[in-house]
Amino acid sequence: LGSPTFTLRQIVARLGGEAVGEVEAPLSGVASLDSAGPRHIAFLANPKYRSRLATTRAGAVIVGPGDRDVGAMPQIVTDNPYAYYARTVALFHPQPPVVAGIHPFAQVDGNAYVAPGAQVDAFAVIGAGSRVGEGARIGSHCTLGEGVTIGAETRLHPRVTVYDGCSLGERCIVHSGVVIGADGFGMARDDGHWVKIPQVGAVRIGDDVEIGANTTIDRGALDDTVIGDGVKLDNQIQVGHNCVIGANTVIAGCTGISGSTTIGRDCMIGGAVGLVGHISICDRVTITGMSFVTKSITQPGTYSSGLPSMPHADWLRNAALLRKLDRTTGHARHALPGEDLDRNDDD
Amino acid sequence: LGSPTFTLRQIVARLGGEAVGEVEAPLSGVASLDSAGPRHIAFLANPKYRSRLATTRAGAVIVGPGDRDVGAMPQIVTDNPYAYYARTVALFHPQPPVVAGIHPFAQVDGNAYVAPGAQVDAFAVIGAGSRVGEGARIGSHCTLGEGVTIGAETRLHPRVTVYDGCSLGERCIVHSGVVIGADGFGMARDDGHWVKIPQVGAVRIGDDVEIGANTTIDRGALDDTVIGDGVKLDNQIQVGHNCVIGANTVIAGCTGISGSTTIGRDCMIGGAVGLVGHISICDRVTITGMSFVTKSITQPGTYSSGLPSMPHADWLRNAALLRKLDRTTGHARHALPGEDLDRNDDD
Amino acid sequence: LGSPTFTLRQIVARLGGEAVGEVEAPLSGVASLDSAGPRHIAFLANPKYRSRLATTRAGAVIVGPGDRDVGAMPQIVTDNPYAYYARTVALFHPQPPVVAGIHPFAQVDGNAYVAPGAQVDAFAVIGAGSRVGEGARIGSHCTLGEGVTIGAETRLHPRVTVYDGCSLGERCIVHSGVVIGADGFGMARDDGHWVKIPQVGAVRIGDDVEIGANTTIDRGALDDTVIGDGVKLDNQIQVGHNCVIGANTVIAGCTGISGSTTIGRDCMIGGAVGLVGHISICDRVTITGMSFVTKSITQPGTYSSGLPSMPHADWLRNAALLRKLDRTTGHARHALPGEDLDRNDDD
Repeated sequence: LGSPTFTLRQIVARLGGEAVGEVEAPLSGVASLDSAGPRHIAFLANPKYRSRLATTRAGAVIVGPGDRDVGAMPQIVTDNPYAYYARTVALFHPQPPVVAGIHPFAQVDGNAYVAPGAQVDAFAVIGAGSRVGEGARIGSHCTLGEGVTIGAETRLHPRVTVYDGCSLGERCIVHSGVVIGADGFGMARDDGHWVKIPQVGAVRIGDDVEIGANTTIDRGALDDTVIGDGVKLDNQIQVGHNCVIGANTVIAGCTGISGSTTIGRDCMIGGAVGLVGHISICDRVTITGMSFVTKSITQPGTYSSGLPSMPHADWLRNAALLRKLDRTTGHARHALPGEDLDRNDDD
Repeated sequence: LGSPTFTLRQIVARLGGEAVGEVEAPLSGVASLDSAGPRHIAFLANPKYRSRLATTRAGAVIVGPGDRDVGAMPQIVTDNPYAYYARTVALFHPQPPVVAGIHPFAQVDGNAYVAPGAQVDAFAVIGAGSRVGEGARIGSHCTLGEGVTIGAETRLHPRVTVYDGCSLGERCIVHSGVVIGADGFGMARDDGHWVKIPQVGAVRIGDDVEIGANTTIDRGALDDTVIGDGVKLDNQIQVGHNCVIGANTVIAGCTGISGSTTIGRDCMIGGAVGLVGHISICDRVTITGMSFVTKSITQPGTYSSGLPSMPHADWLRNAALLRKLDRTTGHARHALPGEDLDRNDDD
Repeated sequence: LGSPTFTLRQIVARLGGEAVGEVEAPLSGVASLDSAGPRHIAFLANPKYRSRLATTRAGAVIVGPGDRDVGAMPQIVTDNPYAYYARTVALFHPQPPVVAGIHPFAQVDGNAYVAPGAQVDAFAVIGAGSRVGEGARIGSHCTLGEGVTIGAETRLHPRVTVYDGCSLGERCIVHSGVVIGADGFGMARDDGHWVKIPQVGAVRIGDDVEIGANTTIDRGALDDTVIGDGVKLDNQIQVGHNCVIGANTVIAGCTGISGSTTIGRDCMIGGAVGLVGHISICDRVTITGMSFVTKSITQPGTYSSGLPSMPHADWLRNAALLRKLDRTTGHARHALPGEDLDRNDDD
C-alpha cells in the first residue's frame, strides 16, 4: 500500500528523543517486540518485558533512559517510551485527510453553516442553525439536530446522532453509534403513572474528547451535561443527565453513570463500573472494574468492589455463607446506600 | 429564542393548583432553586432542600401544601410539586410540532401506509405492509421492516430500527440507536457446533412507552416479547426474547434481562441490574442498582446485591476473606442458582 | 400469510429422524407444548417438562429416544430434539431470499466490488476497495469503510458499521447497531494529558458468526482482533482491541471483554460478565452471569462471582458485615487483581 518509511534520524527529527546506533536504515512500521521484524520499530514501556529485548527481531526499539544500554539494536531513548510509541504509530499511519465538501446526497439545512474546509458524507443530515467547523468531518448517516455546534477538526465517524442544541469542541473523535443529547431519564409519579419531565438542558463537550462506539450521553434536565477537555470515554458507556466529568478523566467500557453525578479531573474509572446518581467523585480517583460506587468520594486514591470469580463449587459455598453472615458474625451498624431511581430533584 | 412567558395565573389556569401572592408577573422558564433568577419558577419537591427557599432568587416556586407559608415569594401550591414541575417544564418547552409529510429522500414502500398527518424524515426506510399512525414522526435513518405498526403520535428519533412484524402503540418516544425486534439469542448445540433457532415471534410494545438511546429489545422465539403500557426504559438496556414487562414499570440504564423473564407492573429496577432468564418478578418490586436477580421474586419489596465500593486496600483484605469464608465459618446448605445460557426450552 | 405446511413424513424426509404415528396430517407451524394447537408441532427437549405431554394440544411432538412411548400423539423421534426443533422452525420459516441488486439510493464506490448475486439496500455506503460476496445482503444505512470484506451469504441487518480494513467470513448474521472496527481504547499519558495511540490493526471475523444488536468489536492496536468460526455473540457486548475469541464460543448479552484478552474454543460466557484485559481463558470454560474474571483460567470448568440478590434489609446487614470481615475474621494473604485501565503494552 505504499506506506511511508522513516529512518531513526527522521523520526527523532520529528518527535524528539535521542537516536542511538544505526540511524539511516529505513523502517516501515511499528510492531510489538514479539512480532516485529527487521523493518519494524518496537518499544519497551513496561520493565517486565525487558527480557524480550534479547530475542526481538525488531530493527530498532524505543526505550527509556534506564534501558539505553540494553540490547544491541538501534534505539530511540526518550523519557516516555509509551507516549513516544503512540506518536510513532501516528507518524507511520497518518489519519486520512479531510476532503472538503458536502456530498450531494447529504441533507444540509439552508440555515446551517458548514465551514468550507469541512467534509460532510453521504446521507448525513444537518439541521437548521447548526455549525460545522473548519476541517471537521461528519460521517455518513450522522444526524445533527438543530442548533448543534461541531468544533474545528472534530471527526464524527458514520452514524453518530447529536440532538438539538448540543455542542462538541475541537479535535474530538466520536465513534459510530454514539448518541449525544437524548433525553435524560426523568419522570414524576402521578396518580399511578409516570409524567415525563421534559429534558431541556443540553450536552456540552470540550476539546480533544474521544467517545467510543455506542456510548450515550444524555442531555440535562434543566442545566447541561458537561464533558471536560481531554476526557476519553470507551465504548458503551452511559452518562446520565446533568453529569459533569472533569478534564482528562478516562472511563473504560460498559460503565454507567447515573444522573447528576460529578466526576473530577484526572480520574481513571475501570470497565463496567456503576455510579449512583447525585454523588461527587473528587480529582485523581481510580475505580477498579465492576465496582459499584454508592457514595461520594472525597479523597484521591483507588476504590473497588468487584468480586473476582472463582470455581463455581467454591463460589456456591462462599456466596451462601455471605448470605447469612448476619447470623454468624453479629449485626451491622452501617447502612448500605441503595441506588434510588429518582431522587425527586433535578439539581 | 422567543420562548413563551407565563404568569402564575396563566400556569394555574392550565395546570391547576393554587396561585399565592403576585400572580401577574411574567415568568420565562423553569430552573432549580439554586440557579433560578427572578424570571424563573423553581420547585421544592424534596423536603431536604427546604432551606434553599430562604436563599433562592426564583421569582416563584412550586410547593406542596406543607410549604405554603415558607418563604415570601409567589407560590403555586399543589399536592404533587414534582409532577407539577414536570408539567410546567412542558408548558414552557412544548415539543416541536410534527410537520406532516414524507421527505423526498425517504424510501416508503408502495405497500406501506403513512397517515396524512405523520412526518417521515430524510433517509428513513419503511417496508411493505407497515403502517405509521396519525401524528407519528419517523426520524432520519430509521428503518421500519415489513409489517411494522407505529401508533398515532409515537415519535422515533433518528436512527431507530424496527424489524419485521413488530408494533409500537400510541404516544411512545423512542430514542436514537434503539433496536426493536432483532433475533433473540437462541441456538441448539449439535455435533460440536451451534444451530440457530429462528426467532419467529415479534415485539409488541404498548402505549406511552419511552425507550432510551441504544436500548435493544429482542423478538420472541415462538411467541412475542411484550412491553406493557407506560413502561419507561432508560438507555442501553437489553431485553431478551420472550420477556414480558408489566405496565408502568421503570428500568434504569445498562440493565440486562435474560430471555423469557417476566416482570410485573409498577416495578422499579435500578441501573446495571442483571436478571437471569426464565424467572418471574411480581408487581411492585424494587431492585437496587447492580443487583443480580437469580430467582423469581414473589413478594413486593426491595431487593439488592450490589456491593458498595471501598478503599482498595480494604477491599483486598475483605475480598480475599470472602473467598475463604467456607474455611472460616463452616459449610453452606443453600445452592446458588447460576445463570444458564440456554435452558433448552423456549416457553 | 400462506405459510407452508408440512406433514411429519415431509419433515423427516428433509431433516431425518423417525416419524411415529399419523404422518400425513398437515402441520402449519411450531409452538411450545403449552401454546400448541392441533396444527402445530411442539418439542420436548427438557425432561422436566415431560408432564406437559399429557396436556398439550399439539398435533405432533419432537422427542428424544427415551420419550418414544410417552403420549399418544404423532412423534418425531430424534437424538437431539432441541436441535431438531431449531431446524423445524427454519423449515416453516425460511429466511427471506436475497434479492440481487444495488438499490439506486445506495452509494457504492467505483472501486468496490459487489457480487452479482448480492443485495445492497437503500442508503447503504460501500467504500473503495471493499468486496461483498455472492448472496450477501447489506442492509439499509450500513456503512462499509474502505477495504472491507464481506463473505458470501453474510447478512448485515440495517445500520451496521464496518470500519476500514475489517473482514467478515461467510454465512454470518450481524444485527442492527453493531460497530465493527472502531478504535480500541488506547492512549498514553504524557505531561498531564492523554496521547491517542492510533489503532492500526483490524478486526477479522470467521464464518458462521452471529453478532447481536448494538454489540461493538474494536480494531486491534497493532495486530488484529480475531473472532473465530461459529462464535455467537448476543446483544450489547463489548469486545476490546486485540481480543481473540475461539471457535464456537457463545457469549450472552452485556458482557464486556477488556483489551488483549484471549478466550478459548467452546466456552460459554453468561450475561453481564466482565473480563479484565491481558488474560487468557482456556477452552471449554463456562462463566456464570455477572461474574468478574480477573485472572487467567487454565482449567475447563465453571467459574462464578455474581452475588444473588436478597431482600434489601438482609442485604444491608450482610454487606455491612462484609465490609468489615477483616476486623472479624483476621487478615488476608491473597491479593485481589484489580483491572488496570492501561497496562502500558499492546501485545
